[in-house]
Amino acid sequence: MIRKIAAEALGTALLLAIVVGSGIMGERLAGGNEAIALLGNTLATAAGLIVLILIFAPVSGAHFNPAVTGIFLLRKEIAPRPAALYMLAQIIGGALGVFLAHAMFDADILQTSAKARAGAGQAIGEATATFMLLLTILACRRARPDALPFAVGLVIAAGYWFTSSTSFANPAVTIARTMTDSFAGIRPADAPMFITAQAAGAALALGVFRLLFAPTGADGAGRPPQAASG
Amino acid sequence: MIRKIAAEALGTALLLAIVVGSGIMGERLAGGNEAIALLGNTLATAAGLIVLILIFAPVSGAHFNPAVTGIFLLRKEIAPRPAALYMLAQIIGGALGVFLAHAMFDADILQTSAKARAGAGQAIGEATATFMLLLTILACRRARPDALPFAVGLVIAAGYWFTSSTSFANPAVTIARTMTDSFAGIRPADAPMFITAQAAGAALALGVFRLLFAPTGADGAGRPPQAASG
Amino acid sequence: MIRKIAAEALGTALLLAIVVGSGIMGERLAGGNEAIALLGNTLATAAGLIVLILIFAPVSGAHFNPAVTGIFLLRKEIAPRPAALYMLAQIIGGALGVFLAHAMFDADILQTSAKARAGAGQAIGEATATFMLLLTILACRRARPDALPFAVGLVIAAGYWFTSSTSFANPAVTIARTMTDSFAGIRPADAPMFITAQAAGAALALGVFRLLFAPTGADGAGRPPQAASG
Amino acid sequence: MIRKIAAEALGTALLLAIVVGSGIMGERLAGGNEAIALLGNTLATAAGLIVLILIFAPVSGAHFNPAVTGIFLLRKEIAPRPAALYMLAQIIGGALGVFLAHAMFDADILQTSAKARAGAGQAIGEATATFMLLLTILACRRARPDALPFAVGLVIAAGYWFTSSTSFANPAVTIARTMTDSFAGIRPADAPMFITAQAAGAALALGVFRLLFAPTGADGAGRPPQAASG
Repeated sequence: MIRKIAAEALGTALLLAIVVGSGIMGERLAGGNEAIALLGNTLATAAGLIVLILIFAPVSGAHFNPAVTGIFLLRKEIAPRPAALYMLAQIIGGALGVFLAHAMFDADILQTSAKARAGAGQAIGEATATFMLLLTILACRRARPDALPFAVGLVIAAGYWFTSSTSFANPAVTIARTMTDSFAGIRPADAPMFITAQAAGAALALGVFRLLFAPTGADGAGRPPQAASG
Repeated sequence: MIRKIAAEALGTALLLAIVVGSGIMGERLAGGNEAIALLGNTLATAAGLIVLILIFAPVSGAHFNPAVTGIFLLRKEIAPRPAALYMLAQIIGGALGVFLAHAMFDADILQTSAKARAGAGQAIGEATATFMLLLTILACRRARPDALPFAVGLVIAAGYWFTSSTSFANPAVTIARTMTDSFAGIRPADAPMFITAQAAGAALALGVFRLLFAPTGADGAGRPPQAASG
Repeated sequence: MIRKIAAEALGTALLLAIVVGSGIMGERLAGGNEAIALLGNTLATAAGLIVLILIFAPVSGAHFNPAVTGIFLLRKEIAPRPAALYMLAQIIGGALGVFLAHAMFDADILQTSAKARAGAGQAIGEATATFMLLLTILACRRARPDALPFAVGLVIAAGYWFTSSTSFANPAVTIARTMTDSFAGIRPADAPMFITAQAAGAALALGVFRLLFAPTGADGAGRPPQAASG
Repeated sequence: MIRKIAAEALGTALLLAIVVGSGIMGERLAGGNEAIALLGNTLATAAGLIVLILIFAPVSGAHFNPAVTGIFLLRKEIAPRPAALYMLAQIIGGALGVFLAHAMFDADILQTSAKARAGAGQAIGEATATFMLLLTILACRRARPDALPFAVGLVIAAGYWFTSSTSFANPAVTIARTMTDSFAGIRPADAPMFITAQAAGAALALGVFRLLFAPTGADGAGRPPQAASG
């Protein structure tokens, strides 16, 4: 279990170093064109996330995301205590990853974001992004586990562009990104709304998954056979 | 069957949210450089489409496209009534996806596109795009089903750039895109020509597939053995 | 055999439509920034080439390239007469693909390129590009046939950027690109040097492959057992 | 063994031709926008690296990197003498690849970089990049060997953007890049710090791998069973 917790912390730290670091690089080089900065940010995040899942999936399942751990808790695939430790590791790891990004780019380690991300549109965007991420994980895990790391990277790449919130889709990432006053930042005041929307999107994904995807014998430990009609 | 219809509607809705949403994002950030906007639009569409096919293929086959459903109807792999329901779900889902994109970006939900897309060149482009999409589906389904989701995403990515029409290749997408006055829009008056060209391209793909690809025992349920010479 | 010839012609035609069409699209949208145009051109070519190989490999082997067919002829994996027909189909198909690209973009069907591509550097570039393409095909075919379509798309994507000639790596493509006065064009006067360099690069790849890659029983039909030390 | 050494030299030469050549191309075409140049450089490097690993892995293991060879030496998966020959081949091959890039672009063959890359931030960046590269290789080799070439390409693509040093992550690449006064160059005076940081990152990866990844029977030849607790 210690290995699993350490894997979640290290993986989430590297994920945040990638998200924040590539945002800083994009902003510094793009000459003011935000679309070009976002292209670099997207490329790095998707590529890095695929690799982190390939690395850490055999150790901890590579959640890196309290919304993912939470859904697995609801599905009884992880017990409450390990789930709480996973989430704590993700949040602490995320903050450490932001510090690492700042250290790499010779910036102040401790920062607070001033970047406003608010409004109903972004809430809908964040719920949509998290809905689609969780549906991807739940569905691919069953039907195409070999493709899961690539699917998760691709769904985040798409989300960076198609959702108005640029697809945080992860409460630990949201908290960590309040700690950077750079391209990827978000004002602390806006974080609660993002996290609420993420929880709603994740719950919706679980509901839709239960309705649309017929359970099979391979569906995992959490669903007792008598729930097959769910 | 209800699950399949819902999957087609939900999948097509998410596809349109991706196409239209990433178009809006690209247009807002690219500072007037349409090529950069199209890069983001392409990246999001291809990545998102791959993921949507990975998610929904086990439920409904992940058509999301009346041209695809229509070809499978001609191949007798789907009966007329389910095919009609599939197409209806795709068209309704597509419209809902456009509304979702508008909601995410705080735009008016109901819009009408003013973007002209016309001329013989674009008709040829649209026929070429649909021809290549259908040939991809028919050929990969037989020889490389594992790679099919990736092939479909890649053929649309290529089509966004190499066809003059930017590769709608999908009547439900075409109808839905008349409902947005943004980067991905198309004037309602231009939609019939696009859909006609798509039907022609799809039919041509079916013909070429029959001529060039020898039927095998693994070719699927819809073609009775005596049609093997077709 | 007729099916194979038709597949080579159709596949090469679509390849050229992609190369030339995405070049026109890039040039029209990129606002004078050639790097952005080349990004779109690269994305479309690599994605489209992967798909075309996935489609046509089961029919004809998906050569689309006289240099590839020529190397297989030297390896005695294809007889001289079919090889000649393959090459003819590739050259005719390539020209037709350029015409299709022009038709899609409402341009004159018949054009002649005025784009100079010359000098020792570009000759070295073209030889390097073709060397690497052929080495990719020869090596992946044996060790990773599942990944071959992706490897070929990726090696051309890399070549568009790392070789000074932007990696034509294909005599049929070179001839066809003399027929378009757009982004992807090449002056007819420069084509012979390109084709000569391509032949040299391909021959070098065959030599290096024989030296570095130990033959195995799975190495293919064309090499008799007694040649195992080659 | 001669084949293996030649494969390492040739593969590293092609890798450097790709890194330096695509940097020159990006710089020449991007009109002063460094982010666009870096996008092309990233695309070419990642795509080319995937292909080179697919080609050469069956011959030499496709290290192309003294840090990789060094870690395998520490793991006793390669003996000291072949490891030294591998490293020598990588360094010589890397220099030859830079010369090839210069020849392709009609530049002076022999150059010295004047590009400063220094400071604590870049040292941390380079250690992070190499740590993540080595962890990718060690972990994927065991759990997902089929995906290893793609994972290595993707981790370098991410590193080009998220690390302040743009992820050299390779001593042979670092030495070679001192020999080009172009986009990818590094001043000779800065190379020792880069290489030191790379060694530290690689060693850290080996330590983390031993702590987090439980040894299994499939873990490879170099670790005797009694070391299973390591």
